[in-house]
Amino acid sequence: MNAEILCVGTELLLGDIVNTNATYLAKELASCGINCYCQTVVGDNPQRLRECLEQALNRADMVITTGGLGPTYDDLTKETVAEYFGRDMVLHQDTLDRMRGFFARIQRPMTKNNEKQAMMPKDAVIFFNDRGTAPGLAVEGGGKTVILLPGPPREMTAMFQSGVRPYLEQRSKTVLVSHSIHLIGVGESQVEQQLRDFMLEHQNPTIAPYAKEGEVMLRVTASAPTREEADELIWPVVEDIRGQYDKYVYGVDVGTLQNALVIALKEKNLTVCTAESCTGGLISQRITQIPGSSGVFHCGVCAYANDIKTALLGVTQSTLETHGAVSEQCALEMARGARRISGADIGISTTGIAGPDGGTETKPVGLVYVAVSSRWYERALELRLGRGYGDERESIRNAAASNALALALKAVTK
Amino acid sequence: MNAEILCVGTELLLGDIVNTNATYLAKELASCGINCYCQTVVGDNPQRLRECLEQALNRADMVITTGGLGPTYDDLTKETVAEYFGRDMVLHQDTLDRMRGFFARIQRPMTKNNEKQAMMPKDAVIFFNDRGTAPGLAVEGGGKTVILLPGPPREMTAMFQSGVRPYLEQRSKTVLVSHSIHLIGVGESQVEQQLRDFMLEHQNPTIAPYAKEGEVMLRVTASAPTREEADELIWPVVEDIRGQYDKYVYGVDVGTLQNALVIALKEKNLTVCTAESCTGGLISQRITQIPGSSGVFHCGVCAYANDIKTALLGVTQSTLETHGAVSEQCALEMARGARRISGADIGISTTGIAGPDGGTETKPVGLVYVAVSSRWYERALELRLGRGYGDERESIRNAAASNALALALKAVTK
Repeated sequence: MNAEILCVGTELLLGDIVNTNATYLAKELASCGINCYCQTVVGDNPQRLRECLEQALNRADMVITTGGLGPTYDDLTKETVAEYFGRDMVLHQDTLDRMRGFFARIQRPMTKNNEKQAMMPKDAVIFFNDRGTAPGLAVEGGGKTVILLPGPPREMTAMFQSGVRPYLEQRSKTVLVSHSIHLIGVGESQVEQQLRDFMLEHQNPTIAPYAKEGEVMLRVTASAPTREEADELIWPVVEDIRGQYDKYVYGVDVGTLQNALVIALKEKNLTVCTAESCTGGLISQRITQIPGSSGVFHCGVCAYANDIKTALLGVTQSTLETHGAVSEQCALEMARGARRISGADIGISTTGIAGPDGGTETKPVGLVYVAVSSRWYERALELRLGRGYGDERESIRNAAASNALALALKAVTK
Repeated sequence: MNAEILCVGTELLLGDIVNTNATYLAKELASCGINCYCQTVVGDNPQRLRECLEQALNRADMVITTGGLGPTYDDLTKETVAEYFGRDMVLHQDTLDRMRGFFARIQRPMTKNNEKQAMMPKDAVIFFNDRGTAPGLAVEGGGKTVILLPGPPREMTAMFQSGVRPYLEQRSKTVLVSHSIHLIGVGESQVEQQLRDFMLEHQNPTIAPYAKEGEVMLRVTASAPTREEADELIWPVVEDIRGQYDKYVYGVDVGTLQNALVIALKEKNLTVCTAESCTGGLISQRITQIPGSSGVFHCGVCAYANDIKTALLGVTQSTLETHGAVSEQCALEMARGARRISGADIGISTTGIAGPDGGTETKPVGLVYVAVSSRWYERALELRLGRGYGDERESIRNAAASNALALALKAVTK
């Protein structure tokens, strides 16, 4: 089966947002074994949208659209697709009820224009939206299928996983199963280079690397008649890779580092606290993303200024004078200080130069120390996260936070 | 003038890389006053590339391509464009000399296949590549122009600025200028409904709403022969909208809330500190995203547990017993406590129920209190951010952080 991706949105044409939806869908389609030879972006203009839709459907069996499902007058993807298939728009009562419930819950009036979102092409398959008001849908006819998804990435990706993926799998005779190996401390290009032959020789399961700041995820995907048979294909490969990258693997199917950490802490009945300088609260924010993290995390301190490092965390004046705030010693004292004031089992800390200013010859932008402290394990790491580009403050902070979380995970499992 | 963007690369179709080139070019074209109604991504396949190129040139005066200019056999954008215009490929001696110089500088042998990069369609305009080997080029014919740029973003962007922008400005008669109005506390659909007629009757400048968690941005864009004339069209409309939404507007052209806050604090020579419960460090993380925020932010406390609220921030036992941790009183005491331990001028706090668990009949998921405290202004807000969906922990936290930042901004400007 061939598919194309058609993203609708003037903000994409103006370059206001990066089209991560196309990347996401491209990757997902590839993992479903569906070929995709073309992606298009078009604005909220009915004629041009219609033209691009027709061209895409001339080339492919299926088109997946994102965007243009909202309540406003320039959201017209649904209407354009209905017209293409010659379908009337009819009220989808269930959707309207859900939307009313939604507005009641947020205690805001449901303006009239929202009702438009409950109008659907006749006989469409509806995908519920757990994260917003606009549902997605699939329309089929004449051997062609168009799947319409909302534009906001967090709505789109959730809907893809909960609704679209099962829909695509139903139409195929096989199921696709994936497991993910999570690594930290190794670069994507290094993994890709080393595993290149391995990836090329494996067609089922396939192996695809994904990079995110400071981390690499390897997704192993198999296609088989049943989930069990797919798993039988996948696990030997997962174990093989896990063996090769033992030093770097922090989990399989654990989602994020912070999730892996919270799970590990709960299992061991341990608590963690943070003392952050250059990451400025990013680590505590990531830990508290996880529902139920309040059981393992009680307190974090963001000690951005030196006098706060001293007053709140007990970093000594002599450490600041001899080694400076950006040092292994300071990182360790911060981690210990956080433990002291919170009573937690494990303290995590970061101190470094996130840039763009503040770097020197000996302490350049990107130099970060992360540390953990506990009764049974204490360790600091020096990281050099700068690449010499101008605009890398956020990637330095993210990578520093990831490395600190990974070090804490190591402390838990020691 | 209309242009389209055509990105060539199988890695884009597979979702291996995000298409930041399209975003960059889209933004640059808009700022040059060149309309762009369509973006396409196609793989390294000569027939499909040719098809997409023809379709794009049927719709637009100009097509800008990225990718497929390298030395390998599957790099064929240049050859495909030459064929479209019926041009022979000829050796561009200057390019060959530059390439030899480049390889001499990096002390690597120039392999034979690199010579391909010096072959150019006859009469092409050449754009030199300061950061790699493949030059860019423009080919004109029959009222159409194709501009070919290399795929690696750092090569492409540098070439765009040094070569392509001057080439385009020479050919365009108008500039496009945008200004952005930032609002908080009002929903996108409400703004859109209220401004609908206003938006429809304004064609130059145009008005477009954009939503992000808890915030709305209205972008006003005008096209005119000069930047000054565009500004003359825009400002009356900006002032008009600002007047209508005075209560909700937190700035014009200020980027993010945290950026607006850091700028305002610097102007007034004030400092801020945070005491976060349900946002778990998100506010301090957002403030410290801003380069130079260390001048206005020294300290943040993430007081996730009640005993930390008491021990570190001085929230009284009687407040916790009488009103609970999720209360206006607790939020105010947290903000005051953060000021006390940090010495900052303004304290920001949050306490609430981010979910998915922990909600009750009287204190449901999404109930959040945010507060600010300063010598001259003290205020707490009750927010109801839950929409009753399962997976909204992050959006509740983000909206709570945004509302707290907006309240702090109000304190600064009081």
